[in-house]
Amino acid sequence: MDSRFQLTRTQAEGLAAEFGTPLYVLDEASLRARIRRYQAAFTAVASRSQLTYASKANSTLALLAIVADEGVLIDCASQGELEAALRAGVPAHRCHLHGNNKSTQELEAAIEHGVHQIVVDNFQELEQLRILSRRPGRSPRGHQTEAQATEPGSTGKGEAPGRAAGEMPDLLLRLAPGVNPLTNAKISTGQEDTKFGFNIGDGSARRALQMALENQLPVKGIHCHVGSQLLDPEAQRGAGAALARFARQMHAEFGWTCEVLNAGGGLGIRYTEQSPMPIEEYCRLLVGAIQEELQGSSLDPILVQEPGRSLVAESGVTLYTVGNIKPTPGRTFVSVDGGLSDNPRPALYDARYEVLDFHDSEDRQTVTVAGKHCETDQLFDGISLSSAIKPGDLLQVLCTGAYNSSMASNYNRYPRPATALLRSSGDFLLVQRRETWDEMFARETLPPDLLK
Amino acid sequence: MDSRFQLTRTQAEGLAAEFGTPLYVLDEASLRARIRRYQAAFTAVASRSQLTYASKANSTLALLAIVADEGVLIDCASQGELEAALRAGVPAHRCHLHGNNKSTQELEAAIEHGVHQIVVDNFQELEQLRILSRRPGRSPRGHQTEAQATEPGSTGKGEAPGRAAGEMPDLLLRLAPGVNPLTNAKISTGQEDTKFGFNIGDGSARRALQMALENQLPVKGIHCHVGSQLLDPEAQRGAGAALARFARQMHAEFGWTCEVLNAGGGLGIRYTEQSPMPIEEYCRLLVGAIQEELQGSSLDPILVQEPGRSLVAESGVTLYTVGNIKPTPGRTFVSVDGGLSDNPRPALYDARYEVLDFHDSEDRQTVTVAGKHCETDQLFDGISLSSAIKPGDLLQVLCTGAYNSSMASNYNRYPRPATALLRSSGDFLLVQRRETWDEMFARETLPPDLLK
Repeated sequence: MDSRFQLTRTQAEGLAAEFGTPLYVLDEASLRARIRRYQAAFTAVASRSQLTYASKANSTLALLAIVADEGVLIDCASQGELEAALRAGVPAHRCHLHGNNKSTQELEAAIEHGVHQIVVDNFQELEQLRILSRRPGRSPRGHQTEAQATEPGSTGKGEAPGRAAGEMPDLLLRLAPGVNPLTNAKISTGQEDTKFGFNIGDGSARRALQMALENQLPVKGIHCHVGSQLLDPEAQRGAGAALARFARQMHAEFGWTCEVLNAGGGLGIRYTEQSPMPIEEYCRLLVGAIQEELQGSSLDPILVQEPGRSLVAESGVTLYTVGNIKPTPGRTFVSVDGGLSDNPRPALYDARYEVLDFHDSEDRQTVTVAGKHCETDQLFDGISLSSAIKPGDLLQVLCTGAYNSSMASNYNRYPRPATALLRSSGDFLLVQRRETWDEMFARETLPPDLLK
Repeated sequence: MDSRFQLTRTQAEGLAAEFGTPLYVLDEASLRARIRRYQAAFTAVASRSQLTYASKANSTLALLAIVADEGVLIDCASQGELEAALRAGVPAHRCHLHGNNKSTQELEAAIEHGVHQIVVDNFQELEQLRILSRRPGRSPRGHQTEAQATEPGSTGKGEAPGRAAGEMPDLLLRLAPGVNPLTNAKISTGQEDTKFGFNIGDGSARRALQMALENQLPVKGIHCHVGSQLLDPEAQRGAGAALARFARQMHAEFGWTCEVLNAGGGLGIRYTEQSPMPIEEYCRLLVGAIQEELQGSSLDPILVQEPGRSLVAESGVTLYTVGNIKPTPGRTFVSVDGGLSDNPRPALYDARYEVLDFHDSEDRQTVTVAGKHCETDQLFDGISLSSAIKPGDLLQVLCTGAYNSSMASNYNRYPRPATALLRSSGDFLLVQRRETWDEMFARETLPPDLLK
């Protein structure tokens, strides 16, 4: 079954008339359904589990509020993403802070806000946290571990524990498990020589844990994330098992109890003809691999997954208006009123998308959908459109709910698009308005002597 | 001689202390020197010439004002870029409008503002212009061709003609000359099956001219742009010759006099070890190829070039602060406080850059400079840095004056960097301040029922 959200012609025409194009559209109902499906699949195989959302995929405030409303915690990869979560009404104690290069100021801000967890990336950060934990008035072990868990079987719907602002958050160590996922190299993050995390293979992870324990830092668990848009789950399975093995070894060596095992995200979605593993099967596989390694030990960590794309991508579409249609000796170009600035993924990752028109005709042609930008900006190649396509028609691009709005730029000085949210009620609500020129130029000043 | 701008340690430390990092820095003196060198080289070989600046490379308002102050016209690839030029104090009659997919509204705005030229991309646009030229009160041929030219030998310093707002601008036809430049496919735009322009080879260009003439549209010349960052000038030479041949043929067939021949831009720069052709030699080669084709004809068009990157890239650097330094089994990562969001070119085009530290020591190590973003975000590989490099140190990345600021995003919710301008006087002036969180979230609203 194709679970990807798409607009009807009537909806598309109404939206274009009201909000203009290009336009990002998010669908609340399918987003909530997808989250619930993921939660149910996870809960079914793990007695203690928690879903968190990798907000880098799309941190539109309305989307964050919906995700949080479903009981999902929010992963923030920067202070700005934490700020987004807070502005979306998500309490800090339901947020995690990530990042391979956190500044002391970012760490301080996260602690002051009272985030739930900080995922520690490197030795320098451990040292920064050691110093911050020694500040007067800070409680390095301010609460019981059990409080972290939601009740068994109630994935995500439970409350994360409250934490007094300024208390040390729980720490997880980000580990590099040394697996090589099959995906675009730019979004592969689990291999031996990644910038992310403590390497298990070379002993860094063990040393990090030892150092944290010696300094009485509240290290509650371990984390990994091996890559994005993974269609073969072997890398995540291997990484989950590697984390579980590491947890057992550290329990044996240091008597340290791993209370949280976060296996990251990365499940691929169906952009075009891909067939990602169903969520249920994926959860079974991942959790099975972890449980197998933990069998016979006394360890029973809360299992965490942090999907981003796989929660939100399919609930978003982008609506464009067709402009010029140009047959060339090699191919026919159908140009739309957006491009690289609102969807850089084709240029960044050779990403492919499904593009639909709103004609009923059976007569089709294969075209290249191009953007407006001053480079090739060949958005989508090999697209089958109605032969009746003409300037002024609307096109929708499916699965743009992730890494489109969050990566948008003003390249060629295009104001960034608006975002409309299709509420579960069936109404559309503008949750992000189109950028204005005044906003685009607000940060600039001319040297007085060059003012004309 | 290495003409690339770089900061001294004293300058870098002062800037970081005053404006923070990451920081874009532009150098006025080298920018003006580069423009003058290009103008002199062009004037030396072409009696009637005009330089225009492809503002998509960097449309920071202060930079546009400096470029225009040197007598260079401004190429705008969108209404937003035209708006930038106007806000920089550049009169519309010193601006050209480009674009492969201009909306009627964009064309109208350009005409109302009174731009100097519109570079027509396709048949649909010709038809739009035909209709717009028939509007009451519009003068389709409002001025003499001679007025377009600057005085012989005074490249760029002359005034473009004034034009009453609403009068039809001069039109150039953008042609696809069917040459295949040697560069990254994403920035190659001159080949047979490009989305840009009227194809010469399949007769589209001839038909476009015929149609424009039949409709008494003020077509004054022809244009091409075959690609960017070209280190082998053969493509531009071939394209210039193809344009000149086309001009002769059209003169013979229709009695049409080509008054403007715009050969575009595309000259590569030295990012790392590249050796682009010196500007003087490039101008000689390009103009020579055009003149050779025109020899014996009565045609004597104004020659136009529209460099972007080659005018501004070398005058810009980006200043970062080093954060985490992480040795891994494969390589050592030096993480900086920026990345994909302020310089997407490594990820987009596998672009390489020179990165310098401010240590004097001879002892070097080879590292990978990584960004802060939640993907590989491996900015710069194989970088030689001092072995003394440590967290808190500054790094400067050379040649970031083009396609960095103009392509910046808020990915991972990082506010976009500030831009400081090193005035010819030696003082630094903040010409673009760092983005604030309030600005980053200003366009968003939460659904009332999801407000906590």
